[in-house]
Order: sequence, then structure tokens, then C-alpha cells
Amino acid sequence: MKNWTDVTMTIYPEMMVYKNKDEKKPKLTVRATHEVNGHYESSIYMDLHTGTHIDMPLHMLPDGHSSDEFDLESVNGTCIVVDFSLEESHEVGADFLKKYEIQKGDIVIIKTKNSYDHMFNPEYDYLDASGATYLENCSVKAVGIDALGIERSVPNHPTHSILLGNGIYIIEGLALKDIKEGRYDFICIPLKIAGVEGLPSRAFMRAIEVK
Amino acid sequence: MKNWTDVTMTIYPEMMVYKNKDEKKPKLTVRATHEVNGHYESSIYMDLHTGTHIDMPLHMLPDGHSSDEFDLESVNGTCIVVDFSLEESHEVGADFLKKYEIQKGDIVIIKTKNSYDHMFNPEYDYLDASGATYLENCSVKAVGIDALGIERSVPNHPTHSILLGNGIYIIEGLALKDIKEGRYDFICIPLKIAGVEGLPSRAFMRAIEVK
Repeated sequence: MKNWTDVTMTIYPEMMVYKNKDEKKPKLTVRATHEVNGHYESSIYMDLHTGTHIDMPLHMLPDGHSSDEFDLESVNGTCIVVDFSLEESHEVGADFLKKYEIQKGDIVIIKTKNSYDHMFNPEYDYLDASGATYLENCSVKAVGIDALGIERSVPNHPTHSILLGNGIYIIEGLALKDIKEGRYDFICIPLKIAGVEGLPSRAFMRAIEVK
Repeated sequence: MKNWTDVTMTIYPEMMVYKNKDEKKPKLTVRATHEVNGHYESSIYMDLHTGTHIDMPLHMLPDGHSSDEFDLESVNGTCIVVDFSLEESHEVGADFLKKYEIQKGDIVIIKTKNSYDHMFNPEYDYLDASGATYLENCSVKAVGIDALGIERSVPNHPTHSILLGNGIYIIEGLALKDIKEGRYDFICIPLKIAGVEGLPSRAFMRAIEVK
């Protein structure tokens, strides 16, 4: 993995979770110890949308498919990183995205102010419906962001619906503090869990052309 | 991920687990549904040694380190697959391993009869202490096997101790049914969980030279 930057959030009990909800925090249970059992073994309880993860269409669309129909090719390939972190607003929209040379089949990774937050910030940056529509019209392959939700709580979840309803997977919870604008090779490897709506993942980037 | 074979066990509630123990089976909890909540969201409870995973030294050594000191390079690189699946015995030992040209720095992947089991078989094939000592003397980088335990329950866990005590990580629960003897590029990408003794993982192989 030389030359690859790990852009995954670390999973631990006190980590940042969506809306600070306690039930979304991962919990570790030690089930065996060296003193009592002669070995050490533990279990984890975690929401499938903890840290870096991929949303399946089932997460937001009643007819959407689960991880059973997920294809790894959909989130692996070349990505373009767009940097929204110096913008004052919180809505990543079409006007901002139009400045970039986004190509058909790109994975678009949106770096925002969120990558500098250490605690959950309810005023997080997100992709609005105009931005989702623009990316869908660009025929991108997937969209990643450093937010634990790619949109805020909005009735009918338009951003999720526009992307997931058009075969564009969403990668949330990327850790992009050290990543600059440019083009990169992108790897996103989720756990292989059957029949679910979210897949905890590990993600990496390797620079192709960085400003 | 073209040309890569996925050698990961699928995670689901009824999957094969070590000794068939119910507490080792992963459990999914649906926490939100489209009908009630307008979206679908679930959580998983799983032993950290579920399916394909990497053992940290802490798992078997009281002074062993946790995932905090784990380096991805230790389980990624070139592997040699040895095929024990046609042997009558269950103990993979030094005599069997000596037949192969194992090189310093290799990741050694042991394919056994286990890859053809659909239920947990208490008579599973495993690596015995002579085999572990032989691989340690070969200065291998890591050892992988298609068993949920690389040894059977033995006092002091000699196989684990010989390998983990010498900086050789153990990858358990590989799915090797479709893999033939030979040399491969090997990728093993675990979840990024802090401070634990086991890391659920995804693993892939790409042929370099296969018989």
C-alpha cells in the first residue's frame, strides 16, 4: 500500500457519529481475557453507517437493492477531488461543481470543512439536490464526501434519491483533511455483508495529478 | 478489481462460525424501516473473528499488541498458495510445507479441505506447531488459512504463539475453494478499528504464476 493515503475514519467507541446519537456509537464487548480464558476476544456492535461506509439504494429507496447486488467496480477507479473547504456556505451545489472538469465515469470526492471537525457539527457541509442532479447529468460513477450524511435531514432525501436512484453509489464518512484537489486512483473496499443497506469500508487514494 | 478473485467469506446471520457457537454468529438489527421512518437502517453485532479476519498478537499473547500497531504492509504483497486439500491427515506440518519453495517475505496461504465445508467441522485442518516453526524459520511475512482457527484448542496455543510472537500475522477464514496452487498478488484490507485483537477483513488474489 505504498504511496496510498488512507482516507478512512478510525472506528472506536467515542468516535464522531451522525447527530451524536448514542445508539450510533460503536460498542466493543470483551468476551474473553488472558487472565480468565487464556486468550483475548471481543465483539463489536456498530451501525452499518459508522465512519467510512457505502450506502446501498435500499438505505433510502423502498425498492432499492441491498448489498447482494453491489459490484465493487462501482466504487473503485479514478476519482476527482473537489475542495469546498474554503467556501463560506454549507450547500455544495451545481454552481460550485461546474468549475471542475468532471468526466463521465469519474468517482467525485467532495472535500469540505467537515474534514476538520473533531465532533459532530449539525451545521455540516452537504451536497444539495442541484449538486446531485449536476453529478447525475455528468454520468459519474460514485460520489464520496467527508460528511456522515451526504445531505441533511430533508423530506424524501432528494440527494440520496437522485444518486442512488440512478445507480450512483454514495460513500460517506471519508477522512480528507490531508487530501488536496486533483485526480487520484481510488480504492474503496467494504466488508462483505449480505443483504444489508450499508457497508462499513476502508478507502485509499493515490495521486495521479495533484495541484 | 478486474482479474482479482475475492477470497472473503460472506457475513450473514447463519454463516459458519467457530465451534458453531451461537454467540459467535453475527446478528443484524433493523433499526429503521421505510414504512415507519422513511429510510432503512440496521446495525450489526459480530465477533471480531467472524469470517475472514486478521489476528493481532493481543489475541493470544498477554503482552501482544493490538490493532493500534498494525501495519497494512504486513498482510499485503506476494503470496504462495500451498494445497493441502488432497491430504488425508488434518495437521499441516513441516514435512508438508518443505515441498514448496517458500521465500523470505512471502505470505503463505494454506488451502485445505476446510474450503469445501459448508458447516463448521470440528475435525478441521489446521497448522501444527512444527508447521508454524518451519514458516517462522522461512521468515515469512504472514500466514493465511481457510480455517476459522489456525490451530485447534491446544493449551498455550503454540501455533498462534510461534507466529504472532515473531511478528507474523495470521489471516483466518479465507475462502479458497476456487484457488489453485501457485503465486499470487495478495490484498487483505481490514476494517480500521482501534485497540482491538481482531480485524474483520476483505481479501483478494490475482494470479502471477498458477499451475
